[in-house]
Amino acid sequence: MRKHFSNPSPHRSLMGIQIAVIGKEDCTEEEYRAARAAGSAIAGMHAVLCCGGRGGVMEAASRGAREKGGTTVGILPDTGRGNPYLDVVIRTGMGYGRNAILVLSADAVVAIGGGYGTLSEIAIALKEGKRVFGYRTWEIDGVEGCDTPEEAVLRAAGAASRSG
Amino acid sequence: MRKHFSNPSPHRSLMGIQIAVIGKEDCTEEEYRAARAAGSAIAGMHAVLCCGGRGGVMEAASRGAREKGGTTVGILPDTGRGNPYLDVVIRTGMGYGRNAILVLSADAVVAIGGGYGTLSEIAIALKEGKRVFGYRTWEIDGVEGCDTPEEAVLRAAGAASRSG
Amino acid sequence: MRKHFSNPSPHRSLMGIQIAVIGKEDCTEEEYRAARAAGSAIAGMHAVLCCGGRGGVMEAASRGAREKGGTTVGILPDTGRGNPYLDVVIRTGMGYGRNAILVLSADAVVAIGGGYGTLSEIAIALKEGKRVFGYRTWEIDGVEGCDTPEEAVLRAAGAASRSG
Amino acid sequence: MRKHFSNPSPHRSLMGIQIAVIGKEDCTEEEYRAARAAGSAIAGMHAVLCCGGRGGVMEAASRGAREKGGTTVGILPDTGRGNPYLDVVIRTGMGYGRNAILVLSADAVVAIGGGYGTLSEIAIALKEGKRVFGYRTWEIDGVEGCDTPEEAVLRAAGAASRSG
Repeated sequence: MRKHFSNPSPHRSLMGIQIAVIGKEDCTEEEYRAARAAGSAIAGMHAVLCCGGRGGVMEAASRGAREKGGTTVGILPDTGRGNPYLDVVIRTGMGYGRNAILVLSADAVVAIGGGYGTLSEIAIALKEGKRVFGYRTWEIDGVEGCDTPEEAVLRAAGAASRSG
Repeated sequence: MRKHFSNPSPHRSLMGIQIAVIGKEDCTEEEYRAARAAGSAIAGMHAVLCCGGRGGVMEAASRGAREKGGTTVGILPDTGRGNPYLDVVIRTGMGYGRNAILVLSADAVVAIGGGYGTLSEIAIALKEGKRVFGYRTWEIDGVEGCDTPEEAVLRAAGAASRSG
Repeated sequence: MRKHFSNPSPHRSLMGIQIAVIGKEDCTEEEYRAARAAGSAIAGMHAVLCCGGRGGVMEAASRGAREKGGTTVGILPDTGRGNPYLDVVIRTGMGYGRNAILVLSADAVVAIGGGYGTLSEIAIALKEGKRVFGYRTWEIDGVEGCDTPEEAVLRAAGAASRSG
Repeated sequence: MRKHFSNPSPHRSLMGIQIAVIGKEDCTEEEYRAARAAGSAIAGMHAVLCCGGRGGVMEAASRGAREKGGTTVGILPDTGRGNPYLDVVIRTGMGYGRNAILVLSADAVVAIGGGYGTLSEIAIALKEGKRVFGYRTWEIDGVEGCDTPEEAVLRAAGAASRSG
């Protein structure tokens, strides 16, 4: 992150801002592409990508961010290694406790697809007053629907920079 | 629980079965009455009531169970004392981590009303394959709606005894 | 617990007081006997026994308490069933997080033997200002050594009743 | 971390290795200096510094690593911001649960000074088979004592690179 100090971006820098991308391990190809695009967009804004650290949507977001030179953080439910695109690996060993930690660590949340685990994260985020931007995800009252993953990231970044 | 060994019930005994009642601290009077009735029904079947240990729906369920001589367990997010109707107080000090612990400890779940915290619990329960019986709660795919709190408890007890 | 309301004890009742017995799953026979005696003594004072819910010292304490008609609570690191002597089973699914929950839930702690897991629990208890009474356990500054498990329970009960 | 790909070090690179520095918030000046030196040494080897994210020893280690251009990760017990020298902030909201997460996330541990909280972390690390290198800390069986913080980091880095 500080590596960008000497390389000012014409875009607003979001160094230190942490954006979570949440979604299923067992995702569709379309969700994988969307999550990778989201990760890429997060890195492009010099924000830190946080995710659950495993496969599927989590891997795709890590991969997209890593490809753009961003910093990737995986918060695992177990004590394993996570996907291969993580710079920082948090091994919680706390099962569902990890879902809360991921959401609490994020300044804003992007949800892509997702099952019940993702729903639990959305619920905790909304309970905490964090904004959740969704792309083809649960249509729960409070989730702000977006037409593309890039739109979700852009709006999440805006929300995150104002929440600081 | 073992106290009932010498006092056999004409009803099927559910000793050792743990049923969670979940819902908001800041609940309506109608939700309070419903949760109290649910706690009463749980105790009447000699199951153990588990709840989040605080006020509102949690207090009402504890109170209803205690009034019928049942055993009440409160799993707190903090390290406090919880409501006055608890036999066993689990002080997690783990915030949202408690939501997962409550659901994982239950053999079946009864949801009454509820906000985002309750939704996070419903989601974890469904993810874990536990059945959730709802009374005026989130209409999420997977939640089995009931017309009365008593119906919710009865069906939860049935599900719990088969899940063992 | 309330079952004792109509059956007053000549001894001071400690209804509602929760005493934890901590120690290793892989314990010696002598530690097993000691933990069983501790559980028995806790039940004899109408306090609630809390433990880690698994085998070894945890099972022995649960068994001793159950044999005396006491209430037993097992707080598991996993989501299993625990030992056969538990009235209430808390399935945390949180690994080491359980160690903290057990200690935070106790009004006083009795440590019997023990390895590094037990040491982590002793440390958290002392950090929280809870008194720890040890029988053949870690000789850490702050642990109050006892000559018998019964002495440890008696002193723990005294500390717990004053901490309320 | 990947920023070093184009800037090969004559020293063995430990990119991706995570070393935890643990110790008290309320530390002595000597402990602060030692922790800062430890953080600096960790960054010098291109390992990632993990710490509890707050003040005292945690701040000093973060500061030392940041001053050398390293990556710093703070794993907080609460949901706050942590000290000003953190690149990645993990907000667990899980109290003592954080102690376990910090240790589980580390490939090796350096302990500097420390109270009961530090002792709980040392105990969990040893239970997990992770090596703990101590500088003026608890003399528990299993802790490997070192004469300087630099020696502790060097030996931790060696242990971490072999544990991978």
